[in-house]
Amino acid sequence: MRTSIATVSLSGSLTEKLTAAARAGFDGVEIFENDLLASPLAPEDIRARCADLGLTVDLYQPMRDVEAVPEAEFARNLRRARHKFELMGRLGADTVLVCSSVHPLAEDDDALAAEQLARLADLAQDFGVRVAYEALAWGRHVSTYDHAWRIVDTADHPALGTCLDSFHILSRGSEPQDLKGIADIPGEKIFFLQLADAPLLGMDVLQWSRHHRCFPGQGGFDVVDLVRRVLHTGYDGPLSLEVFNDVLRQAEAGPTAVDARRSLLLLQEELGIVALPAPATPTGIAFTEVVTPDAEPVGALLGSLGFARTARHRHKPVELWEQGEARVLVNTGPAALPHSRLRSRAGTPLDGTTLAAIGLESPDPAAAARRAEALLAPVLPRRRAAEDAPLDAVAAPDGTELFLCATSRPGLPDWRADFEDDPHTPAPPGELRVDHVALTQPWHQFDEAVLFHRGVLGLDPQESVDVADPYGLLRSRAVTSGDGAVRVPLTVGAAPGDDTAHARHIALATDDVVAAARRFTAAGGRLLPIPANYYDDLAARFEFADGELETYRELGILYDRDTHGVFRHCYTRTVGRVFFELVQRDGGYRGYGAANAPVRLAAQHTAR
Amino acid sequence: MRTSIATVSLSGSLTEKLTAAARAGFDGVEIFENDLLASPLAPEDIRARCADLGLTVDLYQPMRDVEAVPEAEFARNLRRARHKFELMGRLGADTVLVCSSVHPLAEDDDALAAEQLARLADLAQDFGVRVAYEALAWGRHVSTYDHAWRIVDTADHPALGTCLDSFHILSRGSEPQDLKGIADIPGEKIFFLQLADAPLLGMDVLQWSRHHRCFPGQGGFDVVDLVRRVLHTGYDGPLSLEVFNDVLRQAEAGPTAVDARRSLLLLQEELGIVALPAPATPTGIAFTEVVTPDAEPVGALLGSLGFARTARHRHKPVELWEQGEARVLVNTGPAALPHSRLRSRAGTPLDGTTLAAIGLESPDPAAAARRAEALLAPVLPRRRAAEDAPLDAVAAPDGTELFLCATSRPGLPDWRADFEDDPHTPAPPGELRVDHVALTQPWHQFDEAVLFHRGVLGLDPQESVDVADPYGLLRSRAVTSGDGAVRVPLTVGAAPGDDTAHARHIALATDDVVAAARRFTAAGGRLLPIPANYYDDLAARFEFADGELETYRELGILYDRDTHGVFRHCYTRTVGRVFFELVQRDGGYRGYGAANAPVRLAAQHTAR
Repeated sequence: MRTSIATVSLSGSLTEKLTAAARAGFDGVEIFENDLLASPLAPEDIRARCADLGLTVDLYQPMRDVEAVPEAEFARNLRRARHKFELMGRLGADTVLVCSSVHPLAEDDDALAAEQLARLADLAQDFGVRVAYEALAWGRHVSTYDHAWRIVDTADHPALGTCLDSFHILSRGSEPQDLKGIADIPGEKIFFLQLADAPLLGMDVLQWSRHHRCFPGQGGFDVVDLVRRVLHTGYDGPLSLEVFNDVLRQAEAGPTAVDARRSLLLLQEELGIVALPAPATPTGIAFTEVVTPDAEPVGALLGSLGFARTARHRHKPVELWEQGEARVLVNTGPAALPHSRLRSRAGTPLDGTTLAAIGLESPDPAAAARRAEALLAPVLPRRRAAEDAPLDAVAAPDGTELFLCATSRPGLPDWRADFEDDPHTPAPPGELRVDHVALTQPWHQFDEAVLFHRGVLGLDPQESVDVADPYGLLRSRAVTSGDGAVRVPLTVGAAPGDDTAHARHIALATDDVVAAARRFTAAGGRLLPIPANYYDDLAARFEFADGELETYRELGILYDRDTHGVFRHCYTRTVGRVFFELVQRDGGYRGYGAANAPVRLAAQHTAR
Repeated sequence: MRTSIATVSLSGSLTEKLTAAARAGFDGVEIFENDLLASPLAPEDIRARCADLGLTVDLYQPMRDVEAVPEAEFARNLRRARHKFELMGRLGADTVLVCSSVHPLAEDDDALAAEQLARLADLAQDFGVRVAYEALAWGRHVSTYDHAWRIVDTADHPALGTCLDSFHILSRGSEPQDLKGIADIPGEKIFFLQLADAPLLGMDVLQWSRHHRCFPGQGGFDVVDLVRRVLHTGYDGPLSLEVFNDVLRQAEAGPTAVDARRSLLLLQEELGIVALPAPATPTGIAFTEVVTPDAEPVGALLGSLGFARTARHRHKPVELWEQGEARVLVNTGPAALPHSRLRSRAGTPLDGTTLAAIGLESPDPAAAARRAEALLAPVLPRRRAAEDAPLDAVAAPDGTELFLCATSRPGLPDWRADFEDDPHTPAPPGELRVDHVALTQPWHQFDEAVLFHRGVLGLDPQESVDVADPYGLLRSRAVTSGDGAVRVPLTVGAAPGDDTAHARHIALATDDVVAAARRFTAAGGRLLPIPANYYDDLAARFEFADGELETYRELGILYDRDTHGVFRHCYTRTVGRVFFELVQRDGGYRGYGAANAPVRLAAQHTAR
């Protein structure tokens, strides 16, 4: 099916928007009237620009407050419409969106609405234009799709059809009985289909629509079910995105358009109308990679954690450190590619020590990379140097490099082949493994990041939680594999700004966090000090065995419980923008200690 | 009355919060439990710190999910409470806030709730603690203040009272019948009063509370009426602010505390329990002041607008430019004071050409300054140099200097006395006057700025409007004097970030904008080009006399109408961060052309 996007969904000038839509692979656009009015390009120039970019102009929108008004008012509306239809001819648009009226003079009179819409359609027909009538969820008298359809049906005019919009429909309810009326609309009378998702917020529907729409798969609506019902009618127009929110308005048009089209590709895959390479969900964390200008502080920290430097890359300044099943690459080389440089919340590249890449153990690295590429992830060169082993890698929206790789598995290239073992340092025995890798995200890309990890990698998004940092509210949502072998909490602040406090971290699982913490401090490591008040409160909340709480207090171990089990965890000091966590996860505890995050964040601010 | 603020209302570490509260003049604080847990200070140290700062600890909060639970659960709650009461002894807090339960095990049983709260109060009494029970608006079974009071009344325990919270009460309705139950509560049983305002948003009350509270006078609740009712009961505890929102969490604690206390001062003035110097609302704009490193570009722009340089400051590099009744000072000196430097949205000082000061024609400059000082506005030195005329001036929250002054009025110092007329340049005849002065605001200070202009200067806030810039959504709200002689639109972006696009401007009123625009261009000025598409659309929306629209199109004049009249306006190019607007306001038009703002903003982006 053809895909389209409304220019109002993208930030910037109209030409920026068109370029971004074309580069992301959309077939067409809806031209939002205000974008046209603000553009220095004449309608003919916009038409030519679209044609050059391979875009059709699928809709001109919106025309407001047309129908069910007194005759004098309607005469003025027809005059306005004539201007618009002429303009659409110059623009090369043949369908106009008419939203149900919110005008104070609009009457609750379906017959009048139908009669006036038919007269509008008469005029439209003279200009070769079709009118798509849509119920706004906050329309004065017409606010449901089936009501709008009844009026269109009554008008019975070949140039008049309806426009269905997933936000306006699903924001008013999505029980099967609410949607069964869609089947009653002949497909050829559905002139257009606009798609948006939204988080399920109990709020005024107009404000919800204006400030919180998101791309399908990023919210709580069952957009797939709605589209399936619409396609069942025989509708064969484009799937068109009309999404806007306060964040996207400030984001760059290019990445937003990519995010948008990825959302539509995943929607079409779910509908079975686009075939993508199947997901190859990662089965574990093969390694994490820290990029640093100075290997010494990171190496010292890893050493205290019991890691040993077991190998070096054959051609690049990259060391492999290992402890048990946990592997960390320490890279002191220049960033390999521009997009490998992580961006801060404010969008500026991050220098210094940072967590720049993750090696994901993949059941089929090549297939996983093909899926990522089909879903518009930038594919990184398979070989960084001519002599390196081939390695599939893609960039996540935030610039993190994701290596889709295999560790010592027959028949698959082994990423370790590029490393030469240090004959004097066998991998130390150890029990650590990666529990989770926490990635702070640029502010603009939180929803995109969640959809990327779900759609591209096949990870499952968990519940979103708010976490109070002393200097702002953070939002965190983990994406995980079903068995918990891969856990990636994604975290973002409430607004763009400085993110020095929000370093990324690698959480290492142990079966005995007390022993691991003692080994770490005995080896010269320094754990993040946790205030005594925290432990006094723990004593009030839980009962502990003799001495247990005193041990936690001494070491700085935090404690949490959920209905499944217990979580004990402690933190190293931060090097640059990277720190480590030691965690003991017992009895099926599912979270990440969010209840303790405010105390940990405050302690990190104090320690700086 | 004593004033207090909850530490959760302020950003940062507990010590930052306490310092900010004390400096702003609060008498006491509510200690938010999480702030204590995250603090490295022991409770005794916090108590001592408060004492040193002159702050009492008025409340420890919150204790959750205590009442109406099965006995085993309640036994655990009593154990938890004992720990808290011991802690409160160390902290020097004698009142604890207990919120109505949201626990899944809580039963809808008022008798059980009363019985368990009485047992909690028994324990509290042993520790010299009072329990203040409050209905959360989203409490599981108890969600209204009168329900909470009935339970407290039933329990009938000297150590148990109720806590009233304006948010929890007014978010559920504020009709007189909703509030008349307050009169039934004996004042001595109201153990605490928490105050917050909020914008009137139709949304889930929990999300509304967590993300959108604001200080009294900044939202839509009638907090004054509620407090009046509570005081009528004989309540004599503190007025305590408990406010948090996503913006304040990221703002500096110091300015937030000042904003908070100003809000309480204004509330107390309205209640007649604090006497402040009466407002002396400004009657006009005496001058605006542009600070620039290079007078040439600003001078050239003023010259094209028909201004002449009529005088120079006797001791400083400041020129006075005049046209009709409009006066602009061009200051090439260094910024006089650190706080005279405007801050960008991101909080960094702005360099280059900017609108740094406004001279407000005041009926009583000294009285206006006394009121500003009483309301915590930084007062600037009356004389900038020993030989200058005395001049009252204060700093607005954004750093803009506001001169409270008189122009050629007998008995008052004249700001013009510091200027020496240029004998060769008499003030040019002219008809321009200042229509409005538009001030962009740092993101954190929008609500504060509106309250400041209302409370300190006596200006009236108008409706808030959203304006779509191509790169983000702006929010704008004007403050005006009743007669429209002073109009100051305040504008802020949806999030902190770069604000280079959002320069400040001075709008000059003319009786004939077409003639004024022609004079400007004939004198070499360049008006902001407006796209042709805008005029094609105007033709569709309105009917114009022959040639009228063509004139607007030729010059770049924008057009708007409201129910009162017509607005025509055009814009100069921007110098640094300052531009000018020429406006013709006919028939009582009240707005600022907000409908045209997206087109103007896009044109300004294009022109850069």
